[in-house]
Amino acid sequence: MSTKKPVRVGLVGAGFMGRCHANAFRTVGGLFDLSVEPVRAVLADVTEDAANRNAAALGFERGVGDWHALCADPSIDLVAITAPNVLHEPIALAALAAGKDVYCEKPLSTTVQSALRMTEAAEKAGAVTMVGFNYLRNPMVRLARDIIRAGEIGEIVAFRGRHAENYMVSPDAPHNFRTDPQGGGALADIGSHIIAMARFLVGPLRSVSAHGETVHKTRPIAPGSAERKPVVTDDITNAILAFDNGATGVLEASWVAVGRTMDLSWEITGSKGAILFTQERMNELMVYMPGAKAGRDGFQRIESGPAHPPFGNFCPAPGHHLGFNDLKVIEVADLLSAVATRGRCSPDFREASEVQRTIEAMQASSRERAWVEVEAVG
Amino acid sequence: MSTKKPVRVGLVGAGFMGRCHANAFRTVGGLFDLSVEPVRAVLADVTEDAANRNAAALGFERGVGDWHALCADPSIDLVAITAPNVLHEPIALAALAAGKDVYCEKPLSTTVQSALRMTEAAEKAGAVTMVGFNYLRNPMVRLARDIIRAGEIGEIVAFRGRHAENYMVSPDAPHNFRTDPQGGGALADIGSHIIAMARFLVGPLRSVSAHGETVHKTRPIAPGSAERKPVVTDDITNAILAFDNGATGVLEASWVAVGRTMDLSWEITGSKGAILFTQERMNELMVYMPGAKAGRDGFQRIESGPAHPPFGNFCPAPGHHLGFNDLKVIEVADLLSAVATRGRCSPDFREASEVQRTIEAMQASSRERAWVEVEAVG
Amino acid sequence: MSTKKPVRVGLVGAGFMGRCHANAFRTVGGLFDLSVEPVRAVLADVTEDAANRNAAALGFERGVGDWHALCADPSIDLVAITAPNVLHEPIALAALAAGKDVYCEKPLSTTVQSALRMTEAAEKAGAVTMVGFNYLRNPMVRLARDIIRAGEIGEIVAFRGRHAENYMVSPDAPHNFRTDPQGGGALADIGSHIIAMARFLVGPLRSVSAHGETVHKTRPIAPGSAERKPVVTDDITNAILAFDNGATGVLEASWVAVGRTMDLSWEITGSKGAILFTQERMNELMVYMPGAKAGRDGFQRIESGPAHPPFGNFCPAPGHHLGFNDLKVIEVADLLSAVATRGRCSPDFREASEVQRTIEAMQASSRERAWVEVEAVG
Amino acid sequence: MSTKKPVRVGLVGAGFMGRCHANAFRTVGGLFDLSVEPVRAVLADVTEDAANRNAAALGFERGVGDWHALCADPSIDLVAITAPNVLHEPIALAALAAGKDVYCEKPLSTTVQSALRMTEAAEKAGAVTMVGFNYLRNPMVRLARDIIRAGEIGEIVAFRGRHAENYMVSPDAPHNFRTDPQGGGALADIGSHIIAMARFLVGPLRSVSAHGETVHKTRPIAPGSAERKPVVTDDITNAILAFDNGATGVLEASWVAVGRTMDLSWEITGSKGAILFTQERMNELMVYMPGAKAGRDGFQRIESGPAHPPFGNFCPAPGHHLGFNDLKVIEVADLLSAVATRGRCSPDFREASEVQRTIEAMQASSRERAWVEVEAVG
Repeated sequence: MSTKKPVRVGLVGAGFMGRCHANAFRTVGGLFDLSVEPVRAVLADVTEDAANRNAAALGFERGVGDWHALCADPSIDLVAITAPNVLHEPIALAALAAGKDVYCEKPLSTTVQSALRMTEAAEKAGAVTMVGFNYLRNPMVRLARDIIRAGEIGEIVAFRGRHAENYMVSPDAPHNFRTDPQGGGALADIGSHIIAMARFLVGPLRSVSAHGETVHKTRPIAPGSAERKPVVTDDITNAILAFDNGATGVLEASWVAVGRTMDLSWEITGSKGAILFTQERMNELMVYMPGAKAGRDGFQRIESGPAHPPFGNFCPAPGHHLGFNDLKVIEVADLLSAVATRGRCSPDFREASEVQRTIEAMQASSRERAWVEVEAVG
Repeated sequence: MSTKKPVRVGLVGAGFMGRCHANAFRTVGGLFDLSVEPVRAVLADVTEDAANRNAAALGFERGVGDWHALCADPSIDLVAITAPNVLHEPIALAALAAGKDVYCEKPLSTTVQSALRMTEAAEKAGAVTMVGFNYLRNPMVRLARDIIRAGEIGEIVAFRGRHAENYMVSPDAPHNFRTDPQGGGALADIGSHIIAMARFLVGPLRSVSAHGETVHKTRPIAPGSAERKPVVTDDITNAILAFDNGATGVLEASWVAVGRTMDLSWEITGSKGAILFTQERMNELMVYMPGAKAGRDGFQRIESGPAHPPFGNFCPAPGHHLGFNDLKVIEVADLLSAVATRGRCSPDFREASEVQRTIEAMQASSRERAWVEVEAVG
Repeated sequence: MSTKKPVRVGLVGAGFMGRCHANAFRTVGGLFDLSVEPVRAVLADVTEDAANRNAAALGFERGVGDWHALCADPSIDLVAITAPNVLHEPIALAALAAGKDVYCEKPLSTTVQSALRMTEAAEKAGAVTMVGFNYLRNPMVRLARDIIRAGEIGEIVAFRGRHAENYMVSPDAPHNFRTDPQGGGALADIGSHIIAMARFLVGPLRSVSAHGETVHKTRPIAPGSAERKPVVTDDITNAILAFDNGATGVLEASWVAVGRTMDLSWEITGSKGAILFTQERMNELMVYMPGAKAGRDGFQRIESGPAHPPFGNFCPAPGHHLGFNDLKVIEVADLLSAVATRGRCSPDFREASEVQRTIEAMQASSRERAWVEVEAVG
Repeated sequence: MSTKKPVRVGLVGAGFMGRCHANAFRTVGGLFDLSVEPVRAVLADVTEDAANRNAAALGFERGVGDWHALCADPSIDLVAITAPNVLHEPIALAALAAGKDVYCEKPLSTTVQSALRMTEAAEKAGAVTMVGFNYLRNPMVRLARDIIRAGEIGEIVAFRGRHAENYMVSPDAPHNFRTDPQGGGALADIGSHIIAMARFLVGPLRSVSAHGETVHKTRPIAPGSAERKPVVTDDITNAILAFDNGATGVLEASWVAVGRTMDLSWEITGSKGAILFTQERMNELMVYMPGAKAGRDGFQRIESGPAHPPFGNFCPAPGHHLGFNDLKVIEVADLLSAVATRGRCSPDFREASEVQRTIEAMQASSRERAWVEVEAVG
């Protein structure tokens, strides 16, 4: 058996993302040569029964019906939070108070104040934190950042970003936590991904002018219900952007984008080159580099491969593409490396708070129909 | 020889667009069965010499060194204006005063007031007018409009538009008419195309929030000059949009988009379907229609063909694509049909004035850093 | 009026291709600065009436109901043949005998013997000849050839070619000249294009193994007829190829390719690089060049533009794409240049005879179910 | 702990594919609700040391330096073979003799006789067998098969298949097991994938004409060696195909396809519709369906999602794409289901023998320069 130091994981939640975390913790050790070994220890769910059932299904040692117990459990090293957004703060604070490291799904919390409280608690505790903006783990996105940082495309001039999906397109899609006035809406739910990516690749935003639109003014109060109540969150947010470094751009978030399942996409224009990406084709990066001869220039389609770490951990040969779940495995590998070395993850709670601040700047801009300085928020 | 009624054309200007007009007038009669026949009669250029040389090269009967003479020439029926933007108004007014029909390159003029003066003169004169937003002539764009008008994609919810090229990307690209404070800038020059298309496909804009950015703060005063002077026009304009019909969206205009030569592109999201287009692949339309079975939906790539009038005038078989110059031929065919029947073109001077009004609303929004109602401008 | 030397054109046929020729002769002088000027002089059609009607429609001076008269007409300099394939030889021989230059649609004739007779007559007469493999005129195809000839992708290793369309996909598409046992079939009709391209880009074929398949065993004898008769020509031909230079490959010709309107496409693999093209996106060339850094290689999408002659004759700016009819204009420009200088066109009758020889080698291979040496045919 | 019935796995080999198997056995239980649970029990490698090291790395209980011992181990239920091709038969026969089920990497063996011996042994033993043609596990490929089987695209008329990669493109890539005269070559190595897919989607082949080309006539005898010896296997095989059901087609296998890392692609043309696929974009299927209105037809891009089983086991939402390793997980899930129910896998040893027979028919055709009936081989 393994002689690696165990990192005992307590997972809160067993939905889409909980399952995804469990899979990543199960898989990561076979692909990454980590100095620690994650142990799927305890799974907390809303009832004892659900917790036990899901613990068995996802390979955890046991289930508990109360996340407080999980956070207080001295055998747990790392708490992974995939619970509803409003619970992120209390769970994280409890875990941090008990000396755990914390891995939290995005968005970090429902307000920037809450996110900052979590950040301060984490920094005070000296905890390792990671927030699950998994699309940043794509080796193609890392390559883009490396190209940009090396100055290969010159100064960044423009950013065109978007996260468009279609999962709320039906006017009869009911209210759920995503439409909660506290922290809900398309911008917070998926716009947060493209904001995180803008920050990762281009840098912090200085000011924004945004408009949030509620396309479906009412939705059923529950699945199949005839009773409807008003929606106050955005179905679409459009924004124009000014970055600290002088670049400008546009950003869209929409969950009513008919025909789109994952258009998390961007075009970054530099003074000399440009890069395009869409998560719809997550194993490709389109790069336009300076210096081409007249008549011989054009975007180049770079495919993911072993030259783009950590692709090689999944497969030694190019052409064997990564999938979504692999991004979560990379995220967990990065997290466990930081846990092992007491290093810092990115994005951690502080970075995720800045994403939240940017979201709120856009929301404020929309409310006030005015440009808003991002720093002024939160 | 032809017994068709001649329409004697006077062309002002012999640059890129003048040549393009000449080619269209030369070609159109062989492809379209019009009841009139264009005659390339007189070409006006800045000098008598240039005019004569270009008249010979482009197949005009003769040249004149003064556009006033061309406009006053009683043998001319139709004046085509491809002169610098600041001359559009005086030439058009002279032509209209002399009873001519007028075909003017975009943008119609440098200010909305000027454009409206031209419009009023044209309407008072009962002249046929056409403004050269040639990309609207694409059969694929017409198909998109037909699909939208028939309600096939439901209510229009969102518009994402862009016109991005790279021809001013060098900081050493010198000042020219395009950077003239009066009517210049990327938004006016090419943003006008995507605004015209937004109006054509979605409808009028109600209000805008925009930001114009001057990326290169100075440019040489002339080609090769070491002397530079400040640039006051935009290299990039980004905007968020609210349409009269409730749709919202984003729009970008950029002439410093490295790697892009003709990304005049849009995505229109309806409540039930969606349509994508880019002029980079002008013979294709991507359409997502409602009603697909689960697991069997997706964007469909429709290729231009004889089922999309007036494609069949160019070729009886699908797969034989149209090119840019063909769009200008269609524009001239539509113009000559209107001339023959005393009908109305679209876009005429009035419609082009509305495009100009929208440009100025965006410019005002950028100056004032505030939302601007489009109607309030001009 | 022009002082250029006139080249008086006699056009035989006024169908799809006749019209296309007429358009090219009409247009070319405005785009190319030729030392001669084509004059649309006489149009021959099957009846005097049709000839006169089409002459008027296509801008020819007059019509004649008999191509013999056209060929004998001393005022004609150049005979353009767009008549059914079986008439190519008699018309060409008559024209050559009368001292004309000849421009003939592809395929040159229905047998290689016939094609060689035409070639010998032309060479003996010292005539300029051109055969209408118009897809070779694409500036992107020329760029590919230049890249190959310069050795940039190394030695040619493999060719993968195809011409797939769908125009005979219905079993009720009736017999017509295309299904004539003499010279008909998908291979001759459109396979000839991809063979011409293989020769243009890679070189002559040494031997082939091919299989021609008749998918629809009978077809109506005429449009709408209930009477059917057997089809003896191929709907699909598949072949494996060995080139003189050692490259190998595959080739397909199909006119029953559901969903395809113009998949005239190829991939050329060199020892160091590769090039991809499809006529479906005729303004793009995908090029993979050697020397890229690990992790930074990939196919590059080159868009047609002024750096690719003669694109600039159509438009001075990139991003303004060419269409199918423009290819025919380039073909006519090249033809008229050769006429003016008494130069040689490519492909001329001799080159087109080699294409025909290759077709027949494939047909023989299919009949004999054996490899056939191309040289041994004809 | 799990109460599921364990299936104890013995893995032979720990290279690229061994690692891939290990990962799949590790992961599958968290994603698929199987009635059995794979246990990574024993790993055999060429030395005891290597075996122990790799057993630890891949999470196996222990290592053994001799596969005979593994096959003889009574605690093992299932033997997974990822050893060099020449060892497939002896390992499989030993495992079958000891009553194990067998999971073997492709190609099943180096000759059809060998493959048939393995098949007969497996059938006699009543063993479950599976051969690792993992690309068949793609939900998009399954969707294609369902569409075809339902007759939605009509009768199959044509198949155009290819597997092109670039991993042997350098003339200095040394000899290895892939260039072994016994069972080596591009056709056997990767052509086998596209043959398996042709059989899966279209059906058995009746006859073939093929040409195998050795592009690099010599290769170094070992990595970095200056000594070279002749290559007798193919770098490229091109073939023309006749299927039992009357369809015809072409097929290419190449491992010297510069610029290509995974062009495992095909186009299937039916009498009414068509389907396109490339593993380069493994989450997309392009489908052209009959019945479209004129001017509204075109290939539709279908993206993988939960409507395409077993995608939903990986993610409940569309837009979250699968990767290569996920295909191997699906393969293992299918294998374990068959083990649990004593069902039959596809492709099993018999089906893989037919793939091998087809490879050898192509090799024979190439040697003999003649059409070969597939049935006549083996």
